[in-house]
Amino acid sequence: MTLDPRLNDDLAAWDAAHFLHPTTHIANHAKGVVAGRIVTGGEGCTIVDRDGNRFLDGFAALYCVNAGYGRPEIADAIAKQAHELAFFHSFGGHGNEPAIRLAKMVMDRAPAHMSRVFFGLSGSDANETNVKLAWHYHILRGEPQRRKIISRWRAYHGSGIVSGSMTGLPGYHARMGLPLPGFLHTHTAHHLRRPQDDMDEAAYLDWLIAELEQMIETEGPDTIAAFAGEPAMGTGGIIPPPPGYWARVQEVLDRHGILLIADEVVTGFGRTGSMFGSDHFGLRPDFITVAKGLTSAYAPLSGSIISKRVMDVLLTGSEEHGLLAHGFTYSAHPVCAAAGIATLDLVDSQGLVANAGHVGTYFKEALHEALGGHPNVAEIRGEGLMLAVEFMADPGKREWFAPMTVVPKITAAMLARGVIARPLPEGNILGFAPPLCLTTAEADRMVATLTDAVTEVLG
Amino acid sequence: MTLDPRLNDDLAAWDAAHFLHPTTHIANHAKGVVAGRIVTGGEGCTIVDRDGNRFLDGFAALYCVNAGYGRPEIADAIAKQAHELAFFHSFGGHGNEPAIRLAKMVMDRAPAHMSRVFFGLSGSDANETNVKLAWHYHILRGEPQRRKIISRWRAYHGSGIVSGSMTGLPGYHARMGLPLPGFLHTHTAHHLRRPQDDMDEAAYLDWLIAELEQMIETEGPDTIAAFAGEPAMGTGGIIPPPPGYWARVQEVLDRHGILLIADEVVTGFGRTGSMFGSDHFGLRPDFITVAKGLTSAYAPLSGSIISKRVMDVLLTGSEEHGLLAHGFTYSAHPVCAAAGIATLDLVDSQGLVANAGHVGTYFKEALHEALGGHPNVAEIRGEGLMLAVEFMADPGKREWFAPMTVVPKITAAMLARGVIARPLPEGNILGFAPPLCLTTAEADRMVATLTDAVTEVLG
Repeated sequence: MTLDPRLNDDLAAWDAAHFLHPTTHIANHAKGVVAGRIVTGGEGCTIVDRDGNRFLDGFAALYCVNAGYGRPEIADAIAKQAHELAFFHSFGGHGNEPAIRLAKMVMDRAPAHMSRVFFGLSGSDANETNVKLAWHYHILRGEPQRRKIISRWRAYHGSGIVSGSMTGLPGYHARMGLPLPGFLHTHTAHHLRRPQDDMDEAAYLDWLIAELEQMIETEGPDTIAAFAGEPAMGTGGIIPPPPGYWARVQEVLDRHGILLIADEVVTGFGRTGSMFGSDHFGLRPDFITVAKGLTSAYAPLSGSIISKRVMDVLLTGSEEHGLLAHGFTYSAHPVCAAAGIATLDLVDSQGLVANAGHVGTYFKEALHEALGGHPNVAEIRGEGLMLAVEFMADPGKREWFAPMTVVPKITAAMLARGVIARPLPEGNILGFAPPLCLTTAEADRMVATLTDAVTEVLG
Repeated sequence: MTLDPRLNDDLAAWDAAHFLHPTTHIANHAKGVVAGRIVTGGEGCTIVDRDGNRFLDGFAALYCVNAGYGRPEIADAIAKQAHELAFFHSFGGHGNEPAIRLAKMVMDRAPAHMSRVFFGLSGSDANETNVKLAWHYHILRGEPQRRKIISRWRAYHGSGIVSGSMTGLPGYHARMGLPLPGFLHTHTAHHLRRPQDDMDEAAYLDWLIAELEQMIETEGPDTIAAFAGEPAMGTGGIIPPPPGYWARVQEVLDRHGILLIADEVVTGFGRTGSMFGSDHFGLRPDFITVAKGLTSAYAPLSGSIISKRVMDVLLTGSEEHGLLAHGFTYSAHPVCAAAGIATLDLVDSQGLVANAGHVGTYFKEALHEALGGHPNVAEIRGEGLMLAVEFMADPGKREWFAPMTVVPKITAAMLARGVIARPLPEGNILGFAPPLCLTTAEADRMVATLTDAVTEVLG
């Protein structure tokens, strides 16, 4: 929309009066007291607001605008499809050419043991589809009692009722009556958060696996449907898995007939420096959840990618029972699928996966050089272009700052200097997840701005 | 996408190998045995497939392409926004101009006692948002035990885990482990489905209300969070409410402190001949769920419209607790909001609400004239441009055909003649829900085609 200064006051009033924003302090918003702004455009890693301010976006909106802002290739594909055929449904075997082409492109890129993709709209609904199909799989195999879902504390799997129950951040459960019964959480897989100071990495990994095994035994292995995890944790802190973690988890799950849902909403399509986090970290999931990177957020689209072993059971079930009664009106929306095709073409033509690996390594080294010696920096971590700096009062003694007291000040100081980074919830963790087209010069500016902000806030 | 005949074989093979379609006989689809087709374009009420076949679409895809196919005004708005700013998130009070403008347009049209709109992607997620916010409302008011949701048999509220639990069609529950505990269903409000032959309409309404009251008493009134219903039932049979039904239901809910969720995914934005079904049938909901008509399906967008009385409690809760932690990355997507603005502008400029009422009345009368005397036609019903013809073996004796035995043959015979109507699940109900731009000539063709098909199938 073109900026019309005469309308600014109306927009602010309408915003406060009519629009219930997602994940917002709604009382302050209704009073017009908001930190947010109205964004009107962007290019590459930079956004522009309606007052003409420019910001270098170190979080790609919400780790999603992977190809960068202002890509005419994706906008053109959306425009062309919207004019040719904006919508027809895909129920009952109907289809549209972009959805079929995109299904092929997704499966060409997915791990080799995967079979088919079901399209939804959001990461939340794709996780829910995966849970529902995991239940369906067990029912078809004669184990209807396998209903429980295990995920991890600090996981983020969405904010629907089921996806929010899988999420392991108490702030998403409080006063919502979540998690639902049967949604269990194991310990966050992060050595910094080990239960005892003197546990080394090997002992901590043993402890994590024993905790999972114990939960499964206590609950009853034949009551567990699936385990869900992000290959590298995202919103809960940008936490790569401990070395060896996924192989050990996979062994436990396989032994107990428990399916694995890999939530790759953040990691899918290149963010770690590999096309999928499952390949990068050696998972062999039964379901992969994708969204964000699939369309670079230019249009809403998610996917549930299903393994051959699960698909075989679903197909046999359909032989016997007919229709698989699961679908959303907007599943495989032609305009969104066209955005997906253009995005994955750009990911290839621009070499964005390799760039995420290359610039990510450069970025992390620069963070280490600039802040590795700071007395409040407990950890600089991440993989590819998902990086975090965690701050503590005293890292040597593992003394934590009170949650959300320090990093929100640092990100505010960065914003005042024109750079967006994100305070991750329930801690003092600063996250970077920029567009995958980030340059080393832009990484340098982010690091320099962070360094200035840290000096301002912490000395 | 432009048709390229050389690629047809590849498309079919890719489709069967990679694309898990929504609500489809997946075993037949994987074998290439599908009734569906690849749709490539359309205009007004007509779609075109990749082989050049044209069909008059009597169901607006899935009651959603309300403004009709091939509307350049909506495609242009999508294209313009995709080029200016395809995406930025709306978390933390951020926003974009189309989402704010659309919020105002929605609230200008919604019933006067509503306050704000939260944007999601699908009707399913909007129903889930409404359930979650109903739980949140009761928790904030000190009644955390109010968790149960009552809906109706034959209701359709979506096919997620929660929305599918609210749905009252057993085919959507079977082998999925649904409904979840705490999701209850009352009788379908449809006199044709009365429990005793000799109940007149007044006695049946008394019986329905007594059944609801009895369920509430048995479960405990203070355990019920909300009642959800479509103002006029959609997929479950296109069934308008019995006269007086909603006023009686509302009185029971009010007396027990139970919130009302009006699922207007089908009825919202004009289909009944009024802007909202809640106004048309006299409901006073606490939540209204919208999707389909909001964008005419040109882009995925849903809304949860929240009443002032609920919003007041949510705002007070936020004063005390801060952030309302509910939101999807793609909530209030700028491209989808732009599609919504252009759609609602078209609804006004083309007079589509009035047309739905006017042509709907004409269409229903024509159905009565053509088929009112047919011995297997039990009922011709509906409101505006949502109409149904229900077939029975012997309507006088209320002898039913076996479910899905007769109408699928009739819709197949219509399709062979170039007209799409939809067999509604778990019965023998033929549904019409065409674009709201339908002409009386197009209605005539639908009625004539149906009449021919009925003669072919039933004599």
